[in-house]
Amino acid sequence: MSSAAPTLLTPGPLTTSLRTRQAMLQDWGSWDDSFNRLTASLCEQLLAIINGASSHHCVPLQGSGTFAVEAAIGTLVPRDGHVLVLINGAYGKRLAKICDVLGRRFSTFETAEDQPTTAADVERLLNADPGITHVALIHCETSTGILNPLLEIANVVAKQGKRLIIDAMSSFGALPVDAQETPFDALIAASGKCLEGVPGMGFVFARKDALAHAAGNSHSLAMDLHDQHTYMAKTGQWRFTPPTHVVAALHEALAQYNEQGGLPARHQRYTKNCQTLLDGMATLGIRSFVPAAIQAPIIVTFHAPKDPRYQFKDFYERVKAKGFILYPGKLTQVDTFRVGCIGHVTHADMQAAVNAVAQVLDEMQVLDI
Amino acid sequence: MSSAAPTLLTPGPLTTSLRTRQAMLQDWGSWDDSFNRLTASLCEQLLAIINGASSHHCVPLQGSGTFAVEAAIGTLVPRDGHVLVLINGAYGKRLAKICDVLGRRFSTFETAEDQPTTAADVERLLNADPGITHVALIHCETSTGILNPLLEIANVVAKQGKRLIIDAMSSFGALPVDAQETPFDALIAASGKCLEGVPGMGFVFARKDALAHAAGNSHSLAMDLHDQHTYMAKTGQWRFTPPTHVVAALHEALAQYNEQGGLPARHQRYTKNCQTLLDGMATLGIRSFVPAAIQAPIIVTFHAPKDPRYQFKDFYERVKAKGFILYPGKLTQVDTFRVGCIGHVTHADMQAAVNAVAQVLDEMQVLDI
Repeated sequence: MSSAAPTLLTPGPLTTSLRTRQAMLQDWGSWDDSFNRLTASLCEQLLAIINGASSHHCVPLQGSGTFAVEAAIGTLVPRDGHVLVLINGAYGKRLAKICDVLGRRFSTFETAEDQPTTAADVERLLNADPGITHVALIHCETSTGILNPLLEIANVVAKQGKRLIIDAMSSFGALPVDAQETPFDALIAASGKCLEGVPGMGFVFARKDALAHAAGNSHSLAMDLHDQHTYMAKTGQWRFTPPTHVVAALHEALAQYNEQGGLPARHQRYTKNCQTLLDGMATLGIRSFVPAAIQAPIIVTFHAPKDPRYQFKDFYERVKAKGFILYPGKLTQVDTFRVGCIGHVTHADMQAAVNAVAQVLDEMQVLDI
Repeated sequence: MSSAAPTLLTPGPLTTSLRTRQAMLQDWGSWDDSFNRLTASLCEQLLAIINGASSHHCVPLQGSGTFAVEAAIGTLVPRDGHVLVLINGAYGKRLAKICDVLGRRFSTFETAEDQPTTAADVERLLNADPGITHVALIHCETSTGILNPLLEIANVVAKQGKRLIIDAMSSFGALPVDAQETPFDALIAASGKCLEGVPGMGFVFARKDALAHAAGNSHSLAMDLHDQHTYMAKTGQWRFTPPTHVVAALHEALAQYNEQGGLPARHQRYTKNCQTLLDGMATLGIRSFVPAAIQAPIIVTFHAPKDPRYQFKDFYERVKAKGFILYPGKLTQVDTFRVGCIGHVTHADMQAAVNAVAQVLDEMQVLDI
């Protein structure tokens, strides 16, 4: 827990370590060799996390994670492609919206927000429409916290000779994905999530042969990942001004990630955070929205108390005054709030947050949970 | 001059103050009121610099300056628009490239790299092709450092009933532009330039009525400035994850900008930096590329010494070892290098850089300048 500022229990931006933030105390020339080495080292370390060096390129991109998702679709789906978008929350809907704005043909398959897409669904949908060229999937849907069965779906997509685009924004670095076992054309994530960097850049792991054939697909100059990669491979530099301090912070965050034991350790810490949170909230009578079997240890959606004395804004401000920033719900049908389990926080922080919630509910005289 | 790291004499990323970088030592929740207030204050202060609050919206955007330029063209030029792009360097060419990739009809008018576009040129071109709807112009062309006559061109464009899009990336904050005197639909700049923030976001001053009519124009979801503004006006939040630390740094940089005397003081410091640089290099026999009358106090292009013992890479590394990072030339026909005058540097730093250059040329035994 940091000293003065509240601890962010949000799915990114999240709480980072002081060491990561201190890496931003230096200015970098974006043309200089020392910065180019930083970028190269970053990409190499990111590829190592998915065991992807032999099969994929890592293409970093300025902007938020959504910029990288849009760039991946725009670059890797040919203009005459057809994307099947699997939806069970707000981020899946955003994938469909991107296809729509970019003018890529797409179909959607939507399940309830507490219902993962299954590999059987995907197999049936691909059989029914052989014109589909790509499938787009959210790994962990942050709007609820549910986990979709990535490996099973990836295998079905590959068996049918189709290509997979994975939005792994909130899971990358904490949930294992091996690029040699899970076939995909693109997996997308960002700096300010489970790697515990600061927000400001995304990155796309793009299958080498898919990227090589992607020249001219992009609807955008700035978001053209083929151009971005080609220029970087040739010069070592970003095509347009990089967010130098964000890059330096992510590099420092990755050093800590590796020192702490890499993905298994990160997964273990977040799992413990999540369990502490679930157990603690259960003792207060607050129910989680997603069944345990499909709950990713990233963010938890809780049902709001039924008591009319509970108002989210008041609750949020009171919990913030005690040092913790929570996250609003993102469901349309059910009144909820969310608590992130990721960032530079431990299970002790999660227990302290549960205690703060208990005190606040008491202060607010919220009895009917 | 900062202590350990070299001083950046580059046109952004540039040298920032320690106070600006220290603003990044705090994490911010992107949904939280305190961060929303930061964003609102940022936009208000930016609008004040161009006296634009009554006529324009400030729309911040994640990514580098080029992302904001592409977003402005994609959002504000209707799909059946026709852009006249004025070119005298690499950034003008990039404007044309953006129009091309976005599928916007465009014509180009190109002058030599040391030759500003004139208002008479623009008047003649607009008369010759009444189908043109927009004119796009680089204010200060960073590839050489030349200044284009913005006010005169803006008046001609307005007189003809056309709309102006200004890439003011490297001049905004240092060269005066008054939105009530200079008619434009969009003026685009970024965090890591003359405001002396860190790179990672751009912003577009968009004329209110132009933006209001821009729904559905954009080729991109992430770069849709109409959506970005509408969402921000409604919620106070960025549509997608903001680069929180970059925003906080820019806010702190703006506080210093205002404390130091705002635009007049910034302009004066950079002018003195530029003059010290020009005078100092002249004493070494190194000639600047751009005539003094059209030299902006932002970045100076110098002819490379003719001596075969001069090699840019060696020169660059030796000057860097003495504490200054220079910038390569960007001209195709002439061998040059560039030195930026902007950033948290004074004329004393510029003199020290000139001294370093003198020592290095001596070490390299470069005699034929």
